[in-house]
Amino acid sequence: MKTYSDCIPCFARQAIDAARFHHLSESDTEILLRQTLARVCDVDWQRPPPLIGRDIHNTLKEIMKLEDPYLVQKQEQTLTALSLLPQIQERIAAAKNSFAEIIRFSIAGNAIDLGAKTTVSVDVNTTFKDAMHKALPDDAISALQAEIDRAESVLFITDNCGEVVFDRPLMDYIGADKLRIGMRGRPTINDVTINDAAMSEIPPEYTIISNGSDIPGTWLPECAPAFVEAFNTADVVIAKGQGNYETLSQSNRSIYHLLLVKCPVIAHDTQLPVGTYIVQKRKDGCIVSLDPKYAHCGGE
Amino acid sequence: MKTYSDCIPCFARQAIDAARFHHLSESDTEILLRQTLARVCDVDWQRPPPLIGRDIHNTLKEIMKLEDPYLVQKQEQTLTALSLLPQIQERIAAAKNSFAEIIRFSIAGNAIDLGAKTTVSVDVNTTFKDAMHKALPDDAISALQAEIDRAESVLFITDNCGEVVFDRPLMDYIGADKLRIGMRGRPTINDVTINDAAMSEIPPEYTIISNGSDIPGTWLPECAPAFVEAFNTADVVIAKGQGNYETLSQSNRSIYHLLLVKCPVIAHDTQLPVGTYIVQKRKDGCIVSLDPKYAHCGGE
Repeated sequence: MKTYSDCIPCFARQAIDAARFHHLSESDTEILLRQTLARVCDVDWQRPPPLIGRDIHNTLKEIMKLEDPYLVQKQEQTLTALSLLPQIQERIAAAKNSFAEIIRFSIAGNAIDLGAKTTVSVDVNTTFKDAMHKALPDDAISALQAEIDRAESVLFITDNCGEVVFDRPLMDYIGADKLRIGMRGRPTINDVTINDAAMSEIPPEYTIISNGSDIPGTWLPECAPAFVEAFNTADVVIAKGQGNYETLSQSNRSIYHLLLVKCPVIAHDTQLPVGTYIVQKRKDGCIVSLDPKYAHCGGE
Repeated sequence: MKTYSDCIPCFARQAIDAARFHHLSESDTEILLRQTLARVCDVDWQRPPPLIGRDIHNTLKEIMKLEDPYLVQKQEQTLTALSLLPQIQERIAAAKNSFAEIIRFSIAGNAIDLGAKTTVSVDVNTTFKDAMHKALPDDAISALQAEIDRAESVLFITDNCGEVVFDRPLMDYIGADKLRIGMRGRPTINDVTINDAAMSEIPPEYTIISNGSDIPGTWLPECAPAFVEAFNTADVVIAKGQGNYETLSQSNRSIYHLLLVKCPVIAHDTQLPVGTYIVQKRKDGCIVSLDPKYAHCGGE
């Protein structure tokens, strides 16, 4: 997805929110904002927004002299999510369509995001409660289930800390044999990295592949060869969240995107309102129709 | 007033709003946004926001090849305001405290602003109705009235088209002998210029002084000598609206500011909520207390 005009004020907003969240001084806030604007001026807006998001958060790291400024929040969100996991697993076990519930909670976890919100405090408990009442696209979920069942390998690209705990039932459904978990290579906002896998209680027998990058998304030109190999060869790729959507929605391989629509720009690009739980198979910027007669390209 | 961090995303927002309002193409929108960001990067943020506002709207003029892109809106707002003027004058005549009503409608007119709002359509009729229920600072209004009554010369610095019609009763109260009307030198957003005086039905016997500038405010370093002279020598200066507040609130001469608080930054700087009708005598960034024992400096 390209960087839309409406992303531009949002970059400045994100820089201010990050500065306030970390109680930066006025002069450090100005440095962060000026570097953000300079970077926005510098780049081609046909490229996706997370490339600028990365720069905002790298400047923040430099100013704070911290490699992982959101570590405390990541730990807190992980612990809260872990405390909810038994309830999630119970609900999934009791459901008529267990796989749909697995998907429901995986998308619900996508609300735990310190990047897309101006109010940075995301209540994990509220996320869990809200999930119960969301509409789900049954056909796309059934298609995904069938593809996973048929597949020999599934690359599951994670998004944020806390969220990854909500993804655990889906990982367990895929199973250690098929599953490859793709994660960011270095800390960026509250995105989950291989270093957060242990605290997220991801079973050690699950294969994790670092993408080698600090972009809050999956920008293949900067990804590690092992990750690109897994991406190209997996029978199924599942990508969680907006950052992965923004960087992968134009990909020429088909990808299942699971996300919660959190901002008006994604709402415009997907043609679905903010708050929607999305399960879409996409390729080349278009929805791959489950019935090959129909295909739909969203956005501009 | 300095440019606060929160003004930065708002500049980008204003550029996008202006582009959409005038149906600019995607590439022209990008030009406007990039030039806005480049300018924001370039300037000292200790200077007031209208200096950047001016640059946004000058870029817009260049792109549109129009000296006055909001001319149609200015005409529409003026006509609507003129249609309400007889009712306003009736209410003022019938009021117990006529001068307070004169001030009420002058501030109410400040809602007619295409700069501060993200929803650019301002309903002049709604403005008129809302005015009835607003609290007014009686002491400050009495002090202003007493100063006008004592003064030999009053410089009244206008703000927007339409609004200036709502100011007419105050101008009439001051009277042609004392009154000097200060206006922007060239078109910027919907601000009123000397060229809009006739359509605004400002009586030809009233003296109008152009400030010679295209800044949506009053930035003395760029104002014409005749305006600066009037500013320095007037017994009373009255400045309408946010743009004049932003550029004059630190002035070392006392000024009566009449404005409606329309954005969170002005709310922070004045320590009064959005929607407040402000009547404040200010000097050197502080409120000049009507009782000299008390003085208050707002903002940071």
